[in-house]
Amino acid sequence: MAITHPLDPLQPQELRLAVSLLKDSLPGIPLRFKTIEVQEPAKKDVVPYVEAERLGELLPQAPARIVHVLFHRQDTGAHCHALINVDNSCIISQGDLPEHSQSHADVDEMVEIEKICLEHPAVIAEIEKLRLPAGVKVCVDPWIYGTDDPNERRRLFQCLVYLSTVDHPQANHYSIPCTFSPVFNGVTKELVRIDYLPTGTEHATAETQPWTPVPAVEYAHDLLGTPLRTDLKPYIVQQPEGPSFQINGQVVSWQKWRFRVGFNYRDGMVLYNVTFDGRNVFYRLSVSELTVPYGDPRAPFHRRHPFDIGDLGLGIICNQLQLGCDCLGHIKYFDGFRPDSHGEAVCIKNAICLHEQDAGLLYKHTNYRNNQATTVRNRQLAVQMMVTASNYEYIFAWILDQAGGIELEVRATGIMSTIPVDDAGGSSLPWATNVGPGVAAPNHQHIIAVRIDPAIDGFNNTVVYEDSVLMPDSADVPNPYGCGYIAKTSVIEKSGHADTNTDTARVFKIRNDSILNRVSGAPVAYKVQTLATQPIIAAPGSIHRKRTGFAEHAVWVTKYRDGELYAAGEYTNQSLESDGVENWAARDEDVVDTDVVFWHTFSLTHNPRPEDFPVMPAERISVHLKPSGFHEKNPALDVPPSHQSFNKSACHL
Amino acid sequence: MAITHPLDPLQPQELRLAVSLLKDSLPGIPLRFKTIEVQEPAKKDVVPYVEAERLGELLPQAPARIVHVLFHRQDTGAHCHALINVDNSCIISQGDLPEHSQSHADVDEMVEIEKICLEHPAVIAEIEKLRLPAGVKVCVDPWIYGTDDPNERRRLFQCLVYLSTVDHPQANHYSIPCTFSPVFNGVTKELVRIDYLPTGTEHATAETQPWTPVPAVEYAHDLLGTPLRTDLKPYIVQQPEGPSFQINGQVVSWQKWRFRVGFNYRDGMVLYNVTFDGRNVFYRLSVSELTVPYGDPRAPFHRRHPFDIGDLGLGIICNQLQLGCDCLGHIKYFDGFRPDSHGEAVCIKNAICLHEQDAGLLYKHTNYRNNQATTVRNRQLAVQMMVTASNYEYIFAWILDQAGGIELEVRATGIMSTIPVDDAGGSSLPWATNVGPGVAAPNHQHIIAVRIDPAIDGFNNTVVYEDSVLMPDSADVPNPYGCGYIAKTSVIEKSGHADTNTDTARVFKIRNDSILNRVSGAPVAYKVQTLATQPIIAAPGSIHRKRTGFAEHAVWVTKYRDGELYAAGEYTNQSLESDGVENWAARDEDVVDTDVVFWHTFSLTHNPRPEDFPVMPAERISVHLKPSGFHEKNPALDVPPSHQSFNKSACHL
Repeated sequence: MAITHPLDPLQPQELRLAVSLLKDSLPGIPLRFKTIEVQEPAKKDVVPYVEAERLGELLPQAPARIVHVLFHRQDTGAHCHALINVDNSCIISQGDLPEHSQSHADVDEMVEIEKICLEHPAVIAEIEKLRLPAGVKVCVDPWIYGTDDPNERRRLFQCLVYLSTVDHPQANHYSIPCTFSPVFNGVTKELVRIDYLPTGTEHATAETQPWTPVPAVEYAHDLLGTPLRTDLKPYIVQQPEGPSFQINGQVVSWQKWRFRVGFNYRDGMVLYNVTFDGRNVFYRLSVSELTVPYGDPRAPFHRRHPFDIGDLGLGIICNQLQLGCDCLGHIKYFDGFRPDSHGEAVCIKNAICLHEQDAGLLYKHTNYRNNQATTVRNRQLAVQMMVTASNYEYIFAWILDQAGGIELEVRATGIMSTIPVDDAGGSSLPWATNVGPGVAAPNHQHIIAVRIDPAIDGFNNTVVYEDSVLMPDSADVPNPYGCGYIAKTSVIEKSGHADTNTDTARVFKIRNDSILNRVSGAPVAYKVQTLATQPIIAAPGSIHRKRTGFAEHAVWVTKYRDGELYAAGEYTNQSLESDGVENWAARDEDVVDTDVVFWHTFSLTHNPRPEDFPVMPAERISVHLKPSGFHEKNPALDVPPSHQSFNKSACHL
Repeated sequence: MAITHPLDPLQPQELRLAVSLLKDSLPGIPLRFKTIEVQEPAKKDVVPYVEAERLGELLPQAPARIVHVLFHRQDTGAHCHALINVDNSCIISQGDLPEHSQSHADVDEMVEIEKICLEHPAVIAEIEKLRLPAGVKVCVDPWIYGTDDPNERRRLFQCLVYLSTVDHPQANHYSIPCTFSPVFNGVTKELVRIDYLPTGTEHATAETQPWTPVPAVEYAHDLLGTPLRTDLKPYIVQQPEGPSFQINGQVVSWQKWRFRVGFNYRDGMVLYNVTFDGRNVFYRLSVSELTVPYGDPRAPFHRRHPFDIGDLGLGIICNQLQLGCDCLGHIKYFDGFRPDSHGEAVCIKNAICLHEQDAGLLYKHTNYRNNQATTVRNRQLAVQMMVTASNYEYIFAWILDQAGGIELEVRATGIMSTIPVDDAGGSSLPWATNVGPGVAAPNHQHIIAVRIDPAIDGFNNTVVYEDSVLMPDSADVPNPYGCGYIAKTSVIEKSGHADTNTDTARVFKIRNDSILNRVSGAPVAYKVQTLATQPIIAAPGSIHRKRTGFAEHAVWVTKYRDGELYAAGEYTNQSLESDGVENWAARDEDVVDTDVVFWHTFSLTHNPRPEDFPVMPAERISVHLKPSGFHEKNPALDVPPSHQSFNKSACHL
C-alpha cells in the first residue's frame, strides 16, 4: 500500500484490499458490507509519531494500518466483524458481533427497505384505503427503530409513510404524514406488522381512512406559488491573493494553527493533532453522539429516539457540498470514502469544506485622549460538514480564531419530523405544534456530546472547575464592603461527572499542572465554555433515559483508553441501555495529571414554532474552547490592523 | 424649526436654539452644559403618528419637540435642568436637580479633571516621590466615584494614576498603575484627599515609593517589538450592485424590515418602530444599563462600580467609526450630536454604522433520494455602535435577519481596568490575575439590562414563560413510556420579575392575545431567548447590591409609563441605591393585554485571563428575539437560493 499518515482517513485502495481479503477468506459466501473503516491506531503509537513531526525529528515507524469491517453473512444472516491489516494484507481477526448489537442503518438499506415496503401487498392494501387522487405519490422514510422490548432480537425499521402531492424532486412529503406505519425486518425483509398512528390526545388509533386532500406546505422555491424577494443584492467575498491557509494532504496550516482533518463514517469530520504556534493543544476533537428523544407520549411515537451518529453515522449521511452554495470565498473541499453494501468504494465528494470568514472585530481600543484606535478584525477558519438525517439537517463547524480560540458551532435546520394530527382548528396536541393542515411537529430535544481529547502543552492534563463566589467577611479574609469575590477551584481527581452552574458562572478548565504561566503563575490551561442546558426530560427509569446515559450530566471526565470514542457506546441502534461514557467514567480512575478525556453534553429543547416549517431557520448553538493562561498575553497582538487599504469597503452616501 | 419626525434624534439647530433660549432666560449667569437632548414624546402621541405612517394614512399633528437640558449654574454651582419647547421657542420649566443626584461625567469634565489633577501641588509632590526616569509620563484617568458614604453630597472623581513609558499616541499606560489615587471635587475642582492603594492581600497601604522600572505590556502594533503576521491575505466584501438596504433620513428598509435609527446621549443607538412585512413588532429597543461591579474587596477599589450608561452615556463615549476598519462591505453611517460644556454642538461623526453581513446558512434541506438541495444563506443587517469607557470598550449591534429574528450582540473588548500588585512571582491576589510585571486585573462582572418595548402586532401585549416539563403518567394524561413532555405556560399577570431556568429550558414570550395564529391556534408571539447568567455576586445589603436593583432578577415586566427608560434609574452617578425597574415593577400593576415593557438583565462574570491583556479578544454574548407563532410558516421561504452565479466563490485546488 501507499504510505499514509497514521491519522489519515480510509483510502479507497485500502477499502478494496480489505474487501478482497475478506471475500477470499470466506469463499462462496455472499457478504453484505456495512462498514469498512480505518481503526484509529493506539494513541501510544501515534503520539511518538506526531511529536516527532511537531519537533522536526526523525519519524519513527508508523503504526500498521488496520481496517475494521462490519458485514452480514448472507448465508446465515449473522452480523460479523473483522480486523484486517492492510499493510501486510493479513486478516487479524473475524467473528460475530456482540449479541443484541445492531450496526447502523446504511444508505443501501434505506433505499431497499423503502422499495420493499412500497411493494408489499399489505402496504399496498393500506395505500388503497387512502383512495388517492391521480398524481399523489406515497413516500416511505425507513426510520431507526427505538425498541421498547428487551427481548427484541430482530433488526427492525419503522417505516414512516407520507404523501407527496406534486411531481417535483423537492416535493415536501413531510407535510402529509399518513396514519399507518409498517415495521420491517431489515435482514429477512419481512413485514413484522403495521402500526397505526394516533392523531389526537387520546392514544387510540383508527383504521386507515380515505385521504381528505389538503395542500402540502412546500419549501422548493418553484413550488411556493409566490414570487421570491427581488431586493437581495449580491454579496461577494473576494480573496484576490487566495486564502490564508495552506493545505498539505490532510494537514491544514493557518494563522499559527496546524491540524489534520480526519474523516470516518461515524464522526464524519475529526480534528487531530491540533497545535498553536507549535504547542500541542488538542489530540482529537469530535462530535461524539447526537440523539433526539421525542416528547410524544403515544405509541408508536415513543420509539422516535434516533442516535444520529451511532444509528446512522455522520460520515454516511453527510452532504456533498456545492461550490458557492454552502460557503462563500475561497473554499477547500475534502472528499471521503465509504463502502456500499457490495463493498465497492463510494466517493463522498466535498464531504468537508474549509474556508475563511470574517466575524467582525477581534479586538479594539481607542485612546480617548487622541482618538487613536487599534482595530483588529476577527478572521476565522471554519472546517464544516453538513448532514441530512432523513428529514432533518445539522451543520457542524469547528471554527478557529487568531487568538487561540476554537468554537464548535452546531446549526439545526432541515424539516422537522412530523405526525398526522386531527385538525380541529389549531393547537390540538399539548406536546406538539400544528404546522400545517393535518400535520404537527412534536416537541423534542437534541442532545449532543462533544468529545475533547486534550493535549494542553502535553498529553498529561487535569480537569478543574472554577466557581465565582462571594468572599466571606472575616478577620482572616476581610470583605468589609461585600463586593469581593474569588474563583474557587475544584479539581476533578477521579474519573466521573460534573454539572454546570450558572449561579456561580462555573467554568471548566483543562490544564497542564507541570507548566506554569510565567505571568499569572497558574498552570497553563484551556477553558471549556460549557453550555448550561436542559437535561434529558424523559422519566428516570424510562428506556430513553437508560439508552442515553451520557445525558445524565453535562460534563464527564474519563481516563483515556483506546477505542472509547462514542458517548452512548459503540452500538446504539435498538439499544436497550447505553454502554458509553457513563460506564467509562464510573471506573473511578485517577485523572490528575494523566491522559484524560473531557466530554460535554448539551441540548437544544425544541418545541416547534410554525416558523420552523417547512424548513427551519437554523438554530445555532456553540461551545467555545479558549486559552486561559495558555499564553502570557493576547496571542493575536501580531495580527495586522484592520485598514481600508486592505479591506476596500464602500461608504453609502 | 425644520420639520423633524417625532422619533428623530437631536438636530444641531435644536441644540443651539435651546442653548440660546436658556442663556437668554438666565442673563449674565455663566452656564456649564451637561446634556442637551430631545425628550422622547409621550407614546400616546407617537403611536397615532407612526401608525398613520405604517398604514399610509394622513399624518396627525406631530407632538412638539421638547428638549431637555442639564446644566450647572457656575455662580451657585447648582445642578439644574430645563425643558424647552423648540417648536415654539418656549421654556416650559426649569429648576434644580433632585437632591443627591449627580449627572453623568462628560468629556470636557474628564479632560479638565485630568489637567487639574496633574497640576495640583500635592499630586506633583506625590509624583516626585516616584523619581521617574526621563521620558516616563504620568497619565490620569478620572473615574466615576462609587460612593460608600450616605452623607456624601459632593461631585467626586477618583483619579487613577498610571505611567506611560514611551512617547506614543497609543502607549499603554494601563500596564503601569501607580499606588496613589487623588480624589477631586468636580464642581469646586478641589483636591479632596489622596487615597493610597493596597498592593497585596493585606488591605494595608504604604507611602509612595520610588518607581522600579518595568516594561509596559504594549498593544500598539509598532510598539510590539516583534513582527506582525505576514500570512493574512485580504478578504474583501464586494457588493457590486450596492447594499440591499434603503435609507430615508433615519428610516431603514431592508428585507421586509423597516425601522428608525434613533440616537441620544445616553442609550447611544435606539431602534424605534420596528416592523416586519408591515406588521408591528417592537416600539423601541435599547440597551438600558450596563454596570461593572469589581470583585476587589479592598478600599478604595470597592468604589469601582461604574454604570457606563447612566454615569457616562453611550452616546457620549461612542467611537467615531472609520470606513474599512470597523466593518466590511457597503456601510451607511449615522452621525449624532451632543453639546460641549459651553453649549456648542459637537458632531459625532459616524456614531452608528449599518451594514450587511453573511452569517453562513439560514436553512438547508437535501432530499436524500436525489441529493437535490435547497440552500439559503443567512444575510443579516447589523446596526452597530462601539464605545470606549476610558480603558474598556463595548461593541453593541442589533442584528436583523431575514426570518424575523433580531439579535442583540454585545462584545466586550478593550483594556481591562488594572491595579498595582506586589509582584512576588505570579498569582498573588486571589481576586485578580497578574497580567504583567506589577500589574493585575481584578475579577469583575459586566451586568447589562436590555429594554424591550414590544408591539407584537399591536401595542397591547402579554408576557408569559414556558417550562418544558415531563408529563405525569396518569389515567387522565397517560405517559406510559415516560417520554412525553409539554411546555407549561405561566402568564405574568402583575408587573414584577421572573428568573431564568435552564433545567426547564424556560422561554419567555411576548404575545398578543387578541390575534391567533391560524396554523398553530396560539396567540401571535415573539420569544426572548433570555440568557441564564450569574446574578450579581456582591453581598445582600452591600451598597453594590443596593445600587443595582435591576440585577436581582433576569426578567422584569413593567406596565409602560413615559420616561421609564433606564434600568438603574435616571441618576446612577454616586447613587446610594437604584431607583429603576425594580421600583416600577413593584407597582403590582395589571400587565395582561396592555402596554408592557420587557426587561432582561444578563451578565458576563469576567475573571481575567493573561490573554485578555493588554487588549482583550472580544467576548461575545447575544440575546435573540425570534418570532414564535408570529408567522404561519418560515417567513424566509421567499429568500432566493444560494447559488454560485450569485456568490462567485472560488475552489481551492
